[in-house]
Amino acid sequence: MVDKYEQVLELAKRRGFLWNSFELYGGTAGFFDYGPLGAMLKRRVENIWRDIFVINEGYYEIEVPTIGIEDIFIASGHVGGFSDPLTECQKCHEAFRADHLVQDMEENPDTLSAEELTAVICKNDVKCPECGGKLGNAYEFNLMFKTSIGPGGKRMGYLRPETAQGMFVDFPRLLKFYRDHLPFGATQIGKAYRNEISPRQGVIRLREFTQAEAEIFIDPRDKTHPKFKDVSDVIMNLYSQEGQASGETKKIALGEAVKNGIIAHEFLAYCLAMTHKFLIRVGVSPEKMRFRQHMKDEMAHYAADCWDAEILSDRFGWVEVVGIADRTDFDLKAHAKQSQKELSVYVAYDSPKKVRKFVVKPDMGVLGPMFKGKAAKVANALKALKAQELSGDEIEVTVDGEKIRIDKNSVKFETITEEIHGENIIPHVIEPSFGIDRITYSLLEHSYFEEEAKEKIEDEEEESGELRIVLRLPSEVAPVQAAVLPLLSRDELIKPGTEIINKLRKVGILVAFDDSGTIGRRYRRNDEIGTPYSITVDYQTLEDATVTIRDRDTMKQVRAPIKDIENNVYDLIYRGKSFEDAGI
Amino acid sequence: MVDKYEQVLELAKRRGFLWNSFELYGGTAGFFDYGPLGAMLKRRVENIWRDIFVINEGYYEIEVPTIGIEDIFIASGHVGGFSDPLTECQKCHEAFRADHLVQDMEENPDTLSAEELTAVICKNDVKCPECGGKLGNAYEFNLMFKTSIGPGGKRMGYLRPETAQGMFVDFPRLLKFYRDHLPFGATQIGKAYRNEISPRQGVIRLREFTQAEAEIFIDPRDKTHPKFKDVSDVIMNLYSQEGQASGETKKIALGEAVKNGIIAHEFLAYCLAMTHKFLIRVGVSPEKMRFRQHMKDEMAHYAADCWDAEILSDRFGWVEVVGIADRTDFDLKAHAKQSQKELSVYVAYDSPKKVRKFVVKPDMGVLGPMFKGKAAKVANALKALKAQELSGDEIEVTVDGEKIRIDKNSVKFETITEEIHGENIIPHVIEPSFGIDRITYSLLEHSYFEEEAKEKIEDEEEESGELRIVLRLPSEVAPVQAAVLPLLSRDELIKPGTEIINKLRKVGILVAFDDSGTIGRRYRRNDEIGTPYSITVDYQTLEDATVTIRDRDTMKQVRAPIKDIENNVYDLIYRGKSFEDAGI
Repeated sequence: MVDKYEQVLELAKRRGFLWNSFELYGGTAGFFDYGPLGAMLKRRVENIWRDIFVINEGYYEIEVPTIGIEDIFIASGHVGGFSDPLTECQKCHEAFRADHLVQDMEENPDTLSAEELTAVICKNDVKCPECGGKLGNAYEFNLMFKTSIGPGGKRMGYLRPETAQGMFVDFPRLLKFYRDHLPFGATQIGKAYRNEISPRQGVIRLREFTQAEAEIFIDPRDKTHPKFKDVSDVIMNLYSQEGQASGETKKIALGEAVKNGIIAHEFLAYCLAMTHKFLIRVGVSPEKMRFRQHMKDEMAHYAADCWDAEILSDRFGWVEVVGIADRTDFDLKAHAKQSQKELSVYVAYDSPKKVRKFVVKPDMGVLGPMFKGKAAKVANALKALKAQELSGDEIEVTVDGEKIRIDKNSVKFETITEEIHGENIIPHVIEPSFGIDRITYSLLEHSYFEEEAKEKIEDEEEESGELRIVLRLPSEVAPVQAAVLPLLSRDELIKPGTEIINKLRKVGILVAFDDSGTIGRRYRRNDEIGTPYSITVDYQTLEDATVTIRDRDTMKQVRAPIKDIENNVYDLIYRGKSFEDAGI
Repeated sequence: MVDKYEQVLELAKRRGFLWNSFELYGGTAGFFDYGPLGAMLKRRVENIWRDIFVINEGYYEIEVPTIGIEDIFIASGHVGGFSDPLTECQKCHEAFRADHLVQDMEENPDTLSAEELTAVICKNDVKCPECGGKLGNAYEFNLMFKTSIGPGGKRMGYLRPETAQGMFVDFPRLLKFYRDHLPFGATQIGKAYRNEISPRQGVIRLREFTQAEAEIFIDPRDKTHPKFKDVSDVIMNLYSQEGQASGETKKIALGEAVKNGIIAHEFLAYCLAMTHKFLIRVGVSPEKMRFRQHMKDEMAHYAADCWDAEILSDRFGWVEVVGIADRTDFDLKAHAKQSQKELSVYVAYDSPKKVRKFVVKPDMGVLGPMFKGKAAKVANALKALKAQELSGDEIEVTVDGEKIRIDKNSVKFETITEEIHGENIIPHVIEPSFGIDRITYSLLEHSYFEEEAKEKIEDEEEESGELRIVLRLPSEVAPVQAAVLPLLSRDELIKPGTEIINKLRKVGILVAFDDSGTIGRRYRRNDEIGTPYSITVDYQTLEDATVTIRDRDTMKQVRAPIKDIENNVYDLIYRGKSFEDAGI
């Protein structure tokens, strides 16, 4: 039987949503093209993300190169640790994920080292799935695409495995942009790359993909969110650590989840709420969506808490499409170490703090004549001493490897009280990270329906009982937003049709014209690509300058004037105008 | 003296438009980051391009991977010919463009081969500009970034040097999408890469950049454009081949330019008009823009005509930002050859054509018994013969290398008349190709003004005579579209300010809040980043629920109600509402 993935892909290829890349040259696994409708669908998904995170939350978008230099990925750990275990057939030289080949023999093959995987392969005498040949030793294959910047191969470059590093590397600039105030955030929507060993899951596992990521820098001492009260009543499907133990997903209000310690804190919970809002707005079915908490052993060692948004797919089961993590100060510390620069924020106290401080005051009148050119160095060494090191009659310091003893009377010291107005802190990072391609595929799958169409069409035999394919896409996501259909392909009907097209285009609506075949066929063609509104020009149009607007989902029709039709349709698509109100 | 590039870059870096990439790690030439304001500015430029080419012209956007496989770039010629001549210092190992080093010694150094450049370097004893060392022989350095797809280095990948190839490779799919009808077009906005030897022109020459390209497939026999009459009166600065001979740019209407044969045909001229419209809409100064025709020796051998849109920059002079070419059938033929697939369109004639056709009819009753198993091959060889080869008493054919003679009575032939309904043709390609980064930089430069501000600000001393920097960006391009400024940083004024922000965000307006410093300073901060409208909440707001809206360019203010302010500002930005009409 054909599964839903096949149905959706058949439609997607036929109508121009998704195509295999490089098809003309036989194709290459792990790459997909967005065709005319797919690219527009994806743009609209990205724009909704932008509307939520950039416009409404105020986390400005930045754009940094997709090629990165080596330092970045040494700091991030990708040079050292971003790899999958690979084993190659000694006979046909096909490469495989070693952990995938032993998944029936081991509980958690992805936790095994290359050596352990080699041992499992030997013990079980695993052969090449393609030709039955002997498999070689497993080794770690780095998944970054490598290249070289400029001539001579002197400067390594990597295609970024995630957009996130851009925000960390630009931290000092961003901090200034936001005038040194926490919290602030920056986002990126762009390409990321992962040189998969042998991708076999179609659009779900791509070597080149689009991420939308936000890195939000917050004060580690305050993980509340100022707008949390707006979302605390939102009820979501949570599949917590505890729930996973018993296999139970619970519907819980976010406020309660934070209060009960299920979600670590308000800020993370607020990000879950934004994610939930975004996924529903682009057209993911709420009942096919859950938020799964990472288990303790699955979470990165530095993470304070981490949740994945998962979407149910007919073929692939629950698929991770978003990761939302509290990454603490891990990333900034790593880049501070690699770059030898301080990445922190000066945070002023509400009121100054008084702190007691031990101060050493060397007597330069004595030290100067005694040590001459070395006197300054000796003084600095003395200043660095702690109280207990100054307790004896003689004080010892080491200068340029030489031990020097100084009489205690040449050094004064005291404990003073100082006013401190603030301190440098390393922000924590909250990261919601979205896989735009998986989301785009998922919403296609969730909006795909085959159903019996009971539709009465004027001037045609009733088409009831016919099977129709319909993409029930939200109207602000549908690639083609309106179709203009002259009832017959005649000049007198095409002319007002063209006039309507021009009006709609002026307000930015993507409109298609179709005058070939029966009107019923044309409705079907538009249902199939999710066009929410079809506008038909008929002979009444010539009399009273009105047209019919047909609603894709209900197949109902209303009669509306050509005058102001652009605003009428705009309001239907973007401003929640009800379909009935669009009619006269 | 500081030039305009420095002024603009200083502002761009300080306020978050453009940053050097990887600054934290010392930076790398040829890469720039778009900061929070720059990325938003660039998005808006891209969206206007999309509005013109995708929404209004109907050339759908597609999105293909930035990594391409080798076949594509063999076909396109990039593997063989996309290179610059490189010479390396033997002492310090710095690499240089060989043609750049000899530009004072030769007329057209970019036309010289590597061998010729080596000879010029020797003859003139050119030394390394960095250390004075001896330079090595020049050789051609390929400018594509190379990588490897999957493990084992078996499959070469290249970062695409242009987005255009995606549309050619997808030609068969696009043709089906457009239901086999010419003309049709597809576009891409995305990253392209060029591994420059040693880029030294800041944002003008990048190793990673964004292109917006359209490939429009047209019938080679008909290069008119159905909407040409809409643009034939548009007057543009044309710097034609003839004009370049005399150094003269002429203002000519497009209709006239086509009629006089200055521009090859209507379709190309229409693309010039769209380009002109786009550049003006995003904020390029019309008087700093010209269209320069490629000289005959500069044009690709296959091109029918080619024009560059050039923008005048203070530091760099006339900079190419768009190329508009009639590439004929070069690209499709190249991919057809490389892929061994036919890339053509079946075009039906208006009415069937009658053609006379010579047909050979071998008598199988005779040939069968005579040649047995070979009979079919003999018959096929006979069918391939031309009329004159059948004139003798004996007919000779070659089958499997063997010459065979056949009596003429065993072969009948005749000339018949056949009806032909259409033919397969290879479309020609019109390509407008835009460099988005250069355009974005140019419009920053063109909108940058330093001027004396004569502005009266309530509750403050008059700030007349003060120097203000202002970016006179078109309001639909400005990254921050509105600023909300409570006159004083007090809760009672901040509260209505927040309410206004929420209203504006709901309709997708990017709004900034600023309550620090005098209102005059805050106006200046917003002038500098091009915010078109500043909304000030004052004590009158608390009485009558009105605010002031200030226009960036004129510094005039009107009083407007908070009610419906979102639509008021939306119409100012997007619908050409006059500023006076925004007030009560």
